[in-house]
Amino acid sequence: MSNEDSFLASKKRSDEIRADLAVHPEKYLMLTGDRPTGRLHLGHYFGTIRERVALQNLGVPTRVVIADYQVITDRDTTANIADNVHNMVIDYLACGIDPEKTIIFTHSHIPALNQLMLPFLSLCTEAELERNPTVKAEQEASGHALTGLLLTYPVHQACDILFCKGNIVPVGKDQLPHIEQTRQIARRFNERYAQVFPEPEGLLTDAVLIPGLDGRKMSKSYGNAISLSATAEETAKLIKKSQTDSDRNITFDPDNRPGVSALLTTAALCTGRTEVEIAEEIGDGGSGTLKKYVTQSVNDYLAPIRARREELMQDPSYIADILADGNRRANEIANETLGEVREAMGMVYTV
Amino acid sequence: MSNEDSFLASKKRSDEIRADLAVHPEKYLMLTGDRPTGRLHLGHYFGTIRERVALQNLGVPTRVVIADYQVITDRDTTANIADNVHNMVIDYLACGIDPEKTIIFTHSHIPALNQLMLPFLSLCTEAELERNPTVKAEQEASGHALTGLLLTYPVHQACDILFCKGNIVPVGKDQLPHIEQTRQIARRFNERYAQVFPEPEGLLTDAVLIPGLDGRKMSKSYGNAISLSATAEETAKLIKKSQTDSDRNITFDPDNRPGVSALLTTAALCTGRTEVEIAEEIGDGGSGTLKKYVTQSVNDYLAPIRARREELMQDPSYIADILADGNRRANEIANETLGEVREAMGMVYTV
Repeated sequence: MSNEDSFLASKKRSDEIRADLAVHPEKYLMLTGDRPTGRLHLGHYFGTIRERVALQNLGVPTRVVIADYQVITDRDTTANIADNVHNMVIDYLACGIDPEKTIIFTHSHIPALNQLMLPFLSLCTEAELERNPTVKAEQEASGHALTGLLLTYPVHQACDILFCKGNIVPVGKDQLPHIEQTRQIARRFNERYAQVFPEPEGLLTDAVLIPGLDGRKMSKSYGNAISLSATAEETAKLIKKSQTDSDRNITFDPDNRPGVSALLTTAALCTGRTEVEIAEEIGDGGSGTLKKYVTQSVNDYLAPIRARREELMQDPSYIADILADGNRRANEIANETLGEVREAMGMVYTV
Repeated sequence: MSNEDSFLASKKRSDEIRADLAVHPEKYLMLTGDRPTGRLHLGHYFGTIRERVALQNLGVPTRVVIADYQVITDRDTTANIADNVHNMVIDYLACGIDPEKTIIFTHSHIPALNQLMLPFLSLCTEAELERNPTVKAEQEASGHALTGLLLTYPVHQACDILFCKGNIVPVGKDQLPHIEQTRQIARRFNERYAQVFPEPEGLLTDAVLIPGLDGRKMSKSYGNAISLSATAEETAKLIKKSQTDSDRNITFDPDNRPGVSALLTTAALCTGRTEVEIAEEIGDGGSGTLKKYVTQSVNDYLAPIRARREELMQDPSYIADILADGNRRANEIANETLGEVREAMGMVYTV
């Protein structure tokens, strides 16, 4: 199959699952997560968190990994990691992730999950590891030598998905090769030893990609991202200094007016209106009017999330307990799966 | 440093440690082990087991890993693994490894040891992994594609050594690059995060290399190996069919008479005599006389080990208990070390 055919096949399968999710949510188990390298921002929220919460509330059992070991795939420090993890849990809860329904856990605390790396690495060749296009792209973007951990990162991701027998994983198009690698590992394990793992499917996201305030991808490192944890004032300041243009007539034209258009998309997502509608309403009001409108929209939209955030921040031990409980539950699942893996491989040494 | 200079430096350091071991055994912690791919044979015994027992009895704290996950670095099956592991424990005990003094454990049962793979992989580049000469040699010998597990095997070995803070590892010259990789991982971890790990040293073995019965390296796959678990009759039969030559005058000449010389070395190791002494005694007695002498020497030497083996085989649940206890103790150590690693990396999420 060509890459395009293979994408269309994945898209078709993803659409079928999406239709079925509403009918049979209990047939699925979703694994998803984030690298705790900073605060979650609107890009994360509209890109994945909002849908994650919707699927959780639809009744899809959900596991969310805070991928703390993935922080060191392409950097030499874990500075601020505990603070980042703590705030990530706060962001999750503030956005509606419900720890009664969803297990939130960290890599560093689930040894049996990580142990799966060993048998899984034996199921891949070096050539297959090197072929993963995302690994290459991430290494180039980082400007860091390719570490053994980045090289084997898709295998570690397979451990995340398979330790809890996840069968759906929300992904962007560029992450489909990871899912294919996980499917291959599951298939090879099952064929070689015994049926233990599902072959997970990528759930291609429907979400609109929210651009950063300058029209580029939203990313903390570009300074174009509105954090969920920013105050209303910080948000206003960030939007105020975003780059637009001198044409007072506001139009939605992402190619030629990236700054103006990014602001319109941001407001559109927060208000449920369309970019064109908002642009027409502002008309000749210029960037100043647009920025005021966007600031208002974003701050209104985030107000309840931020209020909940404030509340949660008052109780650090509650946050630590949520994570400890999530890790406890993830360990139970991981230990059980590792037991099945040992059994399948004949590595049970009792008499 | 050239390779030869680097070897001489390692040898000098190893000799110093060897001298110190008799004086201060408690300053050291030895990690060693075997892949459970078959029964231990005389090559293992004279190559490493005998010295391991001697160091243990000198008072050097010792950890022995039965490297069950290393079985799948270059093969697609774990067939007979439980039987191989069981018999390996029997072989160890029969040879004098004392489970009161020495912890015997298996990879597959120590999740926190295996978890160290993740942080350690972040401390190596792909280029460094690929540069390891032993990995390449083993992959070529196996005729199997290079798996991710074989590629990362020196990192896994670093986990074995460092999880228990081993500071000496008995090695052959060709394994020195592994030790160097472990030292590098320990050094980088300590510099980047906090002082947690020792930098282990290779203890270059003094042991004579016992050839297989055909003069090649002793290996089960060559059919030239005398297993500790073979009966006296099986041993006699194997020696009887070993290839010698038609010159009735027995001389020690490894280059020109590999079969005859291998038999002489085997008998020499088992009797404590020299090859030349034995050859002169046999004189013109021919291969038949030599083989009878070798058979007698080997069977006499192994008789107490085999008798103890027989005894141990009567009590499989005792063997399983020894391993369960070793795994329990190894898990305690691994969990403690992993705790220190999390602490050093800032991955402690309590308040």
